[in-house]
Amino acid sequence: MAPSAQPLPPSVSDEKYANVKWEELGFGFVRTDNMYVAKCSFGESFQEGKIVPYADFEISPCSSVLNYGQGLYEGLKAYRTEDDRIILFRPDQNGLRLQAGADRLCMPYPSVEQFVSAIKQVVLANKKWIPPPGKGALYLRPLLFGSGPILGSLPVPEFNFTVFACPVGRYHKDNSGLNLKIEDKVRRAFSSGTGGVKSITNYSPVWITMIEAKKQGFSDVLFLDAATGKNVEELFAANVFIVKGNVVTTPELSGTILAGITRKCVIELASDFGYKVEERVVPVEDLIDAEEVFCTGTAAIVTNIASVTFKDKKTEFKNGEGTLASKLFKTLVDIQTGRVEDTKGWTVEIDQC
Amino acid sequence: MAPSAQPLPPSVSDEKYANVKWEELGFGFVRTDNMYVAKCSFGESFQEGKIVPYADFEISPCSSVLNYGQGLYEGLKAYRTEDDRIILFRPDQNGLRLQAGADRLCMPYPSVEQFVSAIKQVVLANKKWIPPPGKGALYLRPLLFGSGPILGSLPVPEFNFTVFACPVGRYHKDNSGLNLKIEDKVRRAFSSGTGGVKSITNYSPVWITMIEAKKQGFSDVLFLDAATGKNVEELFAANVFIVKGNVVTTPELSGTILAGITRKCVIELASDFGYKVEERVVPVEDLIDAEEVFCTGTAAIVTNIASVTFKDKKTEFKNGEGTLASKLFKTLVDIQTGRVEDTKGWTVEIDQC
Repeated sequence: MAPSAQPLPPSVSDEKYANVKWEELGFGFVRTDNMYVAKCSFGESFQEGKIVPYADFEISPCSSVLNYGQGLYEGLKAYRTEDDRIILFRPDQNGLRLQAGADRLCMPYPSVEQFVSAIKQVVLANKKWIPPPGKGALYLRPLLFGSGPILGSLPVPEFNFTVFACPVGRYHKDNSGLNLKIEDKVRRAFSSGTGGVKSITNYSPVWITMIEAKKQGFSDVLFLDAATGKNVEELFAANVFIVKGNVVTTPELSGTILAGITRKCVIELASDFGYKVEERVVPVEDLIDAEEVFCTGTAAIVTNIASVTFKDKKTEFKNGEGTLASKLFKTLVDIQTGRVEDTKGWTVEIDQC
Repeated sequence: MAPSAQPLPPSVSDEKYANVKWEELGFGFVRTDNMYVAKCSFGESFQEGKIVPYADFEISPCSSVLNYGQGLYEGLKAYRTEDDRIILFRPDQNGLRLQAGADRLCMPYPSVEQFVSAIKQVVLANKKWIPPPGKGALYLRPLLFGSGPILGSLPVPEFNFTVFACPVGRYHKDNSGLNLKIEDKVRRAFSSGTGGVKSITNYSPVWITMIEAKKQGFSDVLFLDAATGKNVEELFAANVFIVKGNVVTTPELSGTILAGITRKCVIELASDFGYKVEERVVPVEDLIDAEEVFCTGTAAIVTNIASVTFKDKKTEFKNGEGTLASKLFKTLVDIQTGRVEDTKGWTVEIDQC
């Protein structure tokens, strides 16, 4: 990928839509047309990057990301509305979270304005990949990583901030609610670690149990805290909520779970709906004792958890129509897709001029 | 990097040595001539790769290593002997450790034979970069990582096994022994995590405290266990040993510390020297109460720890001439560099034909 040799992106073609079978769209990699790349040397600040054709990176074999795992990712979505506008959902929140992660992993970072501008540029440069209304979203994947060579001692000489895009449909295929395995051995994060930021180092280390759980027929894994193994933390890439009576409870942000943006919205919406919302330590017993359980995330949005299995004992929960999760899902998606007026100031419309 | 377009490495020039100021050689990135690359698709096995000119990788922005941290590294050294042979030190052990890590991170891996063959090929293809006897070593850096694109769900479609090389001198610049900070807040690894394998995810998450410690004038950081914060684990990239009377003690391998190859050799050598060697939980108090403390690693070899500082209290240890560390260092380096006969079967000579 040589940005200087490709000064302009290919113009967005006249076709309104890319050649995608929108009805069959899942959540996986689809190659799109363009991406955004900015680089920054050690001791400097990120300057405006540029849109370049989507292509493989050229990256040093001795780069800090490949050798020492110095990288962060983000995830957010652009929707096409029924009246053909394009809207983003709280992109500033992703920009802020990337900054917190960059501080944790000792990297410089783009300003929130640069971040949001990059997102908008990538959406417009891949406009025909935004699914039709109701068929999904254009998922944006920002990456920030150490790209310069380093062996042994710091500093890392160069950093890369990239955003690429993939059209996506549903993340979890289970329409009838998720069946989770509560993982009793492998932990996801520990106090003073990177569980509270979107570090790439949080993910592949738990694939070993994700693979096992999927083989056993589970939809996803729910992790417990590393300190005691008694409290609920989060799924592979989603926060968890429990509902009992008029109280909605979710694990507090103590540094080991991700400060989900959908989590933050759901706390506000549930409160708007008249629920009492608690952020606190959540023992497994409280979850098992709940009436309803759901998870939240950019990919999952709000998804009911139909059952959890802990030490081979399965517990089922209220699911589907009439649940708080289904009400939250509808409310959130209506805002995200521009079907209702956004009175929260959460959406950002992309100017298409 | 397009292997097929570069079927043969540039022939090793007639010069015996590259243009390096060997006396000034530290431990950092130096670009050499050639590297080894092998790729493997999901569900298949690694086949023999090839030597290609050292160059940046072309890697998918959506690769599992860049997005989810799926990567391992190894480190080993090739030495040029005084009688101009080239020897490796226990490369099979690195190959085995890579396999254990690959299992943990759900990756296929090369056989030990492929691994050792790749190392030998890289050494020969960069022969002029092996320092003169006594001036350092050619450091080999094998990488195994998920190179194929993945978004959301497994499997990862492609994996990459690469080996590159850099000439290196001393890792720690402090000739008079290291001054360590015992880190009281940030932990390195937790039970069920990846601390026991050479996952890239173990390293950048602790840079935040390494940078702080170096600013404070320390040589390196000594980490405590995440479960209790009371027991000694290891340095950033080296194991730790303590000596008291006739007893040499090192933290046991319980999954949170790396099974160092130098650690394994030192346990055997110390035993040969008549010491009683214990592998057990090592409370900070035991370390502070020791007569001598040292660290071991491929980069560090065996290095005395002159002092540790814990909660602002500094404790000094026996250091330099007459220490067990200096005896172990000399014995090990004599074997590694071919100055004495290897009665252990630890060295592997590279056939230069």
